[in-house]
Amino acid sequence: MAGDAVKLLGAWPSPVVMRARIALNLKSVGYEFVEENLGNKSQLLLQSNPVHKKIPVLIHGDKPVCESLIIVQYIDEVWSSGPGILPSDPYDLATARFWAAYIDDKWFPSLTGIAKAQDDGAKKAAIEQVSEGLALLEDAFRKCSKGKTFFGGDRVGYLDIAFGCFLGWLRVTEKMNGVELISRSKTPQLAQWAERFCADPAVKDVMPETDKLAEFAKVLFAKFKNPPSQ
Amino acid sequence: MAGDAVKLLGAWPSPVVMRARIALNLKSVGYEFVEENLGNKSQLLLQSNPVHKKIPVLIHGDKPVCESLIIVQYIDEVWSSGPGILPSDPYDLATARFWAAYIDDKWFPSLTGIAKAQDDGAKKAAIEQVSEGLALLEDAFRKCSKGKTFFGGDRVGYLDIAFGCFLGWLRVTEKMNGVELISRSKTPQLAQWAERFCADPAVKDVMPETDKLAEFAKVLFAKFKNPPSQ
Repeated sequence: MAGDAVKLLGAWPSPVVMRARIALNLKSVGYEFVEENLGNKSQLLLQSNPVHKKIPVLIHGDKPVCESLIIVQYIDEVWSSGPGILPSDPYDLATARFWAAYIDDKWFPSLTGIAKAQDDGAKKAAIEQVSEGLALLEDAFRKCSKGKTFFGGDRVGYLDIAFGCFLGWLRVTEKMNGVELISRSKTPQLAQWAERFCADPAVKDVMPETDKLAEFAKVLFAKFKNPPSQ
Repeated sequence: MAGDAVKLLGAWPSPVVMRARIALNLKSVGYEFVEENLGNKSQLLLQSNPVHKKIPVLIHGDKPVCESLIIVQYIDEVWSSGPGILPSDPYDLATARFWAAYIDDKWFPSLTGIAKAQDDGAKKAAIEQVSEGLALLEDAFRKCSKGKTFFGGDRVGYLDIAFGCFLGWLRVTEKMNGVELISRSKTPQLAQWAERFCADPAVKDVMPETDKLAEFAKVLFAKFKNPPSQ
């Protein structure tokens, strides 16, 4: 089963697609990356994820696995011989799952809220909300890392992937709005963690350059402000 | 660790609290149930879940675990000697996680959409959306159960708990709106599964009676329609 061909349907700017790529890299799994055109989704994507029609989809043999955090867990379970991605202790695992859900359900929506803000007041409020979330995550880092270098301990783990995949978009948001969100003065632990995460061999080749992502973001954010008429 | 005292902060009408109770019952774990007054949350709840301030919270020894599906997974991992709640095969597990996320993110919000609808047109559309979701779940049942009696095979498992906890609220919605959502004619597999699920020894004592829940629902739904002024 672990030896079956692996294909990943994705798109380079997508942070959640990056989660699957990092997990595959950590396990040294070779895979074919299929770049999707989200304006014209492939039949393979529509067939593989008929409910949500979203990337990423991992196709392992002929079996599709959807939803980025489910894919990361699947990779950890199937390629169990490599280093573990999820914490082995049940309480550490529950804590990592809690913060991963917080990031997806609360924190990342607040980050996109900065781009979607229609006026300066709304933007300021969204920036405040993102910063409050980062303060919580700074505290979570202290507790999860237990004095080590990653949320997962000595190496990149589940929560590192869940949060770290958004660092490219966070840097773009900082650049486009002239603000510091993760910095040595505001969130010293996260600032050091972010540097280590982006330099990790499993991450550095799949983390998009900030300038390239900023160009992409300008087009995307303009759509938020001027949605196409139905 | 498994022998430490277990406390569950919850409220009887809450479907997500029921998830934790069913999982504890399946593992024959004794626990103290603490009924929260959600209009005046306890200090213990606020301290145990400072981020979301929501039930359920499982307190194991002195460690709080939050978020219902995370709690169910934690219970399965800590009390590993009992029957497994999560599928052991990684693909079956990914599939169960996919549908559990679908139920929380898409299907249950559409069920509450029926109660929140402000006019007949919106209500009809919400009922249609719930039924479309149930058709998907009927199909998922065929695939997940593999001809057996539960989503999880021969016994109640993760997806049974994730979906089954909403059956009380589904029956209330049917009763209050004079519609059939899960029935032998529309969703024959789900109809039989729902009967079996509600009769299961781990479930029957924690599934609220429809009439009692309907009384509670009348008060709650009135608030949806006439939210208190800020």
